[in-house]
Amino acid sequence: MSNDKSSLRPVRFGVIGTGGMGGRHARNLTNEVAAAQVVALADVDEARLQAVAAACGAAHTFADAAELIRHPDVEAVLVAAPDRFHAALTAACIEAGKPVLCEKPLALSAAEALRIVEAEVAGGRRLVQVGLMREYDPAHLRVKQIMDSGALGKALAFHGTHINGGTLSWRTVEDVVTNSAVHDLHSARWLMGDEIVRVFASYVPYSADRPDTARLMLIQLQFRGGAVGRIECNMEAGYGYEVDVKLTGERGSAETNSLRSAVVRHQNQRGQWVEEDWLQRFDTAYIDEVRAWIRSVQLGVADGPSAWDGFASMLVADACIASARSGQPVDVAMPEMADIYRRA
Amino acid sequence: MSNDKSSLRPVRFGVIGTGGMGGRHARNLTNEVAAAQVVALADVDEARLQAVAAACGAAHTFADAAELIRHPDVEAVLVAAPDRFHAALTAACIEAGKPVLCEKPLALSAAEALRIVEAEVAGGRRLVQVGLMREYDPAHLRVKQIMDSGALGKALAFHGTHINGGTLSWRTVEDVVTNSAVHDLHSARWLMGDEIVRVFASYVPYSADRPDTARLMLIQLQFRGGAVGRIECNMEAGYGYEVDVKLTGERGSAETNSLRSAVVRHQNQRGQWVEEDWLQRFDTAYIDEVRAWIRSVQLGVADGPSAWDGFASMLVADACIASARSGQPVDVAMPEMADIYRRA
Amino acid sequence: MSNDKSSLRPVRFGVIGTGGMGGRHARNLTNEVAAAQVVALADVDEARLQAVAAACGAAHTFADAAELIRHPDVEAVLVAAPDRFHAALTAACIEAGKPVLCEKPLALSAAEALRIVEAEVAGGRRLVQVGLMREYDPAHLRVKQIMDSGALGKALAFHGTHINGGTLSWRTVEDVVTNSAVHDLHSARWLMGDEIVRVFASYVPYSADRPDTARLMLIQLQFRGGAVGRIECNMEAGYGYEVDVKLTGERGSAETNSLRSAVVRHQNQRGQWVEEDWLQRFDTAYIDEVRAWIRSVQLGVADGPSAWDGFASMLVADACIASARSGQPVDVAMPEMADIYRRA
Amino acid sequence: MSNDKSSLRPVRFGVIGTGGMGGRHARNLTNEVAAAQVVALADVDEARLQAVAAACGAAHTFADAAELIRHPDVEAVLVAAPDRFHAALTAACIEAGKPVLCEKPLALSAAEALRIVEAEVAGGRRLVQVGLMREYDPAHLRVKQIMDSGALGKALAFHGTHINGGTLSWRTVEDVVTNSAVHDLHSARWLMGDEIVRVFASYVPYSADRPDTARLMLIQLQFRGGAVGRIECNMEAGYGYEVDVKLTGERGSAETNSLRSAVVRHQNQRGQWVEEDWLQRFDTAYIDEVRAWIRSVQLGVADGPSAWDGFASMLVADACIASARSGQPVDVAMPEMADIYRRA
Repeated sequence: MSNDKSSLRPVRFGVIGTGGMGGRHARNLTNEVAAAQVVALADVDEARLQAVAAACGAAHTFADAAELIRHPDVEAVLVAAPDRFHAALTAACIEAGKPVLCEKPLALSAAEALRIVEAEVAGGRRLVQVGLMREYDPAHLRVKQIMDSGALGKALAFHGTHINGGTLSWRTVEDVVTNSAVHDLHSARWLMGDEIVRVFASYVPYSADRPDTARLMLIQLQFRGGAVGRIECNMEAGYGYEVDVKLTGERGSAETNSLRSAVVRHQNQRGQWVEEDWLQRFDTAYIDEVRAWIRSVQLGVADGPSAWDGFASMLVADACIASARSGQPVDVAMPEMADIYRRA
Repeated sequence: MSNDKSSLRPVRFGVIGTGGMGGRHARNLTNEVAAAQVVALADVDEARLQAVAAACGAAHTFADAAELIRHPDVEAVLVAAPDRFHAALTAACIEAGKPVLCEKPLALSAAEALRIVEAEVAGGRRLVQVGLMREYDPAHLRVKQIMDSGALGKALAFHGTHINGGTLSWRTVEDVVTNSAVHDLHSARWLMGDEIVRVFASYVPYSADRPDTARLMLIQLQFRGGAVGRIECNMEAGYGYEVDVKLTGERGSAETNSLRSAVVRHQNQRGQWVEEDWLQRFDTAYIDEVRAWIRSVQLGVADGPSAWDGFASMLVADACIASARSGQPVDVAMPEMADIYRRA
Repeated sequence: MSNDKSSLRPVRFGVIGTGGMGGRHARNLTNEVAAAQVVALADVDEARLQAVAAACGAAHTFADAAELIRHPDVEAVLVAAPDRFHAALTAACIEAGKPVLCEKPLALSAAEALRIVEAEVAGGRRLVQVGLMREYDPAHLRVKQIMDSGALGKALAFHGTHINGGTLSWRTVEDVVTNSAVHDLHSARWLMGDEIVRVFASYVPYSADRPDTARLMLIQLQFRGGAVGRIECNMEAGYGYEVDVKLTGERGSAETNSLRSAVVRHQNQRGQWVEEDWLQRFDTAYIDEVRAWIRSVQLGVADGPSAWDGFASMLVADACIASARSGQPVDVAMPEMADIYRRA
Repeated sequence: MSNDKSSLRPVRFGVIGTGGMGGRHARNLTNEVAAAQVVALADVDEARLQAVAAACGAAHTFADAAELIRHPDVEAVLVAAPDRFHAALTAACIEAGKPVLCEKPLALSAAEALRIVEAEVAGGRRLVQVGLMREYDPAHLRVKQIMDSGALGKALAFHGTHINGGTLSWRTVEDVVTNSAVHDLHSARWLMGDEIVRVFASYVPYSADRPDTARLMLIQLQFRGGAVGRIECNMEAGYGYEVDVKLTGERGSAETNSLRSAVVRHQNQRGQWVEEDWLQRFDTAYIDEVRAWIRSVQLGVADGPSAWDGFASMLVADACIASARSGQPVDVAMPEMADIYRRA
């Protein structure tokens, strides 16, 4: 991911939300992206705000995110506020005509996400990138490159594995789908280059008397072009964090090789350490995500996961929830995608 | 798999069918199992029959399989005739009170298989072993041993991958399920130690205008005890043959490591040769299968995959076909299992 | 490894020594080799002798091994007595004109081994197979097959790794070389199809004040044809048992893939269980070794590791010891091999 | 590798040599390191010089490297000129009191390198970092971290594998050792935390009548503290580029897992693409190397591979060449290391 300091001017940007992901993004932008300058931060937690501002050298701080968006020094905005504010803040950025990288989910419902899409389409050009960051994972990219080369023929099936080490509390079906599986739904759409038209989801609850919770969920996918797919989303694997994909083509398959740890032989085991969470597994991806975003802002040409992707994955997620609840397959009524979302 | 020549007398057995699998079984019994003597063979193809008889040193040859079953020198029978004769021949062995190893499928329909089960139950003891030979694959056994140890907690999910290198002709949905996926359905039941109560199947046809064919099928499973499962059955992978299973437990997972080929570095590849078909992949399993069967005959205590297993996997297979055809999940109405089928 | 019961008569053989390896060989011959009959056993430990005789159904038992060798019912002899008796017992078998499988080492010194070679050559045909059983390990055989195919060009280098889990007591340099590294020296000669002409050995002692002991030894090899090699012999790895080889050719390399255990994910590890000792790692090889031997006895054509191999690996071992002791490279004065040892 | 833009001022540096590695370093500094500014470049090739200057936005260009070193805008210097100028340019930087990152080798002989060491020691503080960049490879670092944790006990043996895909021309023994194996000699010293006191090298020439060339070299090492080591340096593997290390401790071993490519199944192979050269294999390491260097310049505290490391690895390299030539082990007379080179 190149970002040529010499020929392109630096970008002055603001970050809304300085908690976990927001703070990480701010630090990545500051320390890992040559062309980026953090000039503004917004948060209602004043102490946290000032700490991050000091670390990043940000000149402006705001309690009100709307002020940050309006500020003339801010050219582009990264939204890492709590989920319920995502849609409104992104809409405000579109209205202000400023490029925005919004953490996933883009909105709390497909309907709300669709309104963002409509606003952006009305403006005639892409301003929104959504934080569906699997696209920046080197391991995923290698698989995509191989499939795109055509050497393995047309893609027939998508296989996604999303394993979480453990959680502090039981997760509802809704939570599992919208917060975890949504990444895999996006990976499926992105890697297959096709839309999902039907889903079937089933799951193992944390306990039999809490059928609203999902410890492990399996989702089966039907793509518009005839291919199929399957996703495993394990919320409490008990051993570590792993995200992998495999694509089956007509003449072979390609699968991520994501384990980077050393091979250790010890106590009758030939073992490799498995990462604990997404911050470890996707450390490089988070950096490459903001680098690519800054680059696209410099070039004035948005690419990366779009508002459409944010909307579409949410629409499929809603179908998954309905399927898990009803025990029946559910069709996805995907509207036609506007031309501005067509990717190279 | 030990078979102690000294303490247990050899078993005189007959083989019905001397084609592909029948010939292989006869040779394995002759060359690889110390305690076995092939004394009789039956086939309608006289030339093939005599060739195998010479190779195995079999004294008796029959055109009529019923005569072989009745012959007093024959203590036990291996049925490797064409599929449509399996049920009748197995029933004849039960009637004759002789142990029988019947190649899968046990019958052409679940109803027909159920009649075998009922006949065996009526006799009060197990005589039938069915050729669902995944149980003898060392790689599968290692996974089972680990799950049974309890170290990974209760099993929450089954994952089965069944990849075929290619086929001479397009396969129908029915064929894919009853001839290929049936193995995986049995693996699922055997490794999870639970019955499947609901299935959902979808597939990619060989071409859009031949929706009766299935090139790649995905099956999602619901187990009685609450666990879930998924099976991938690829009929034309274009690259080789692979069968693997993974079980997800509460505290970790166990997965077959079945690739035995050398690691070769050549032409910018670190590669391992993938086997071409089941005869290569399961060479050891086929031998261990007949060894175990001979041993059980010597001990007079049948174990291994039973007529019940043959029936149950077929009942689930029927549900998979119905699901693939209808696009809807299908419940499996599994009867109660008779006590004689309870396994240690 | 096929041994056709029908066309070839069974072999009646005797086993000298019924301890660890002797008892295992006797049981393997009895239970795993259709064409073999254990008819005689010899041991000075009467209790052990009778126990194994009962298990194998051996008719004759002897306290005096010489009587076993002479007995007319005994067609072939497996020598698994203590090392110091190997040479004399093998010589007696040659004198009696009976095929013999002698556990390694063939003798306690290269000079003693050479006398066996000379006796066998004087008789004009091979009668001796030596228990250098790496040749029967499927993983080693796959590497050999690939190199012999020529696809990777001429072999330029041999790499041998021999890792022992641990020992009850400290091992001397002499012990490490003659009991452990001798296997790797044979693998090097066998897989490269060439003789070793020069060695350089260095080692880490168990403690600095016991320089006669060797915990870990590295041996560098020069082959007659110009290739090189290296061996690592770790006597106390602290974690498990592993034996692997890699051959470097002009256009690539081939390496054993010997780990057969399941892939287990547990406690932040993606691990595979590593075997504890050679009985586990080489279980199949020990069986295939006696099967091949019985087959060669039936056919009257000895193949497998020869007395020459036993002698040559010992001659190289002596050089390794001299090198380790002196800290200097040592040349190996390998005599010309007699024609009867030329292998197909 | 963090480099905090806010609290530490950017570093203005000059690059001498704008060819292969020099150009890459200049681009990495420009695009990948937030805190670095390329202000000056020197090269005798005017066209190349101007092209890189334009790409990096460098204000000053020089035909004479000495002018660059003296220029007041240049705070630190990266030397990527041809090997024969390294020592003189590094000495000039020391004289000017400016931090310098010198590509390996530090000098053309151990004697010349020692003079650099002496000059630096005379100045009383470290100014020199040498481009022995294995220290920045994430895979090597993971192995080091595990060994340093103590979990595997004291390190007993070092194993280095250095495989080059191919060369345009035959390489001499001297060239192989000083240009390739020198990296592995440094890895051995760095990872074992110990000096090499004795070496034994042997090799396979490209052809028997060119014994001055080395296609594949094996080096055996003795460390001061009693451990041993071995290095394989293959100059024309014919298949790709691979660099890996393994350390054997008292209770287990740790080995780099460096293959990052996707797992592709195709044409009866389960394969992974192997990189073609060091620029691919070590892409991240080259970036992390300059990041770490810039950071150390900002902090005014040199760490990373030192002039001592450059000297010591060259002294061992000379011994390897002498050993390869003579066929005898060669002792290394390592002087005492000055205190300024002691690393945390």
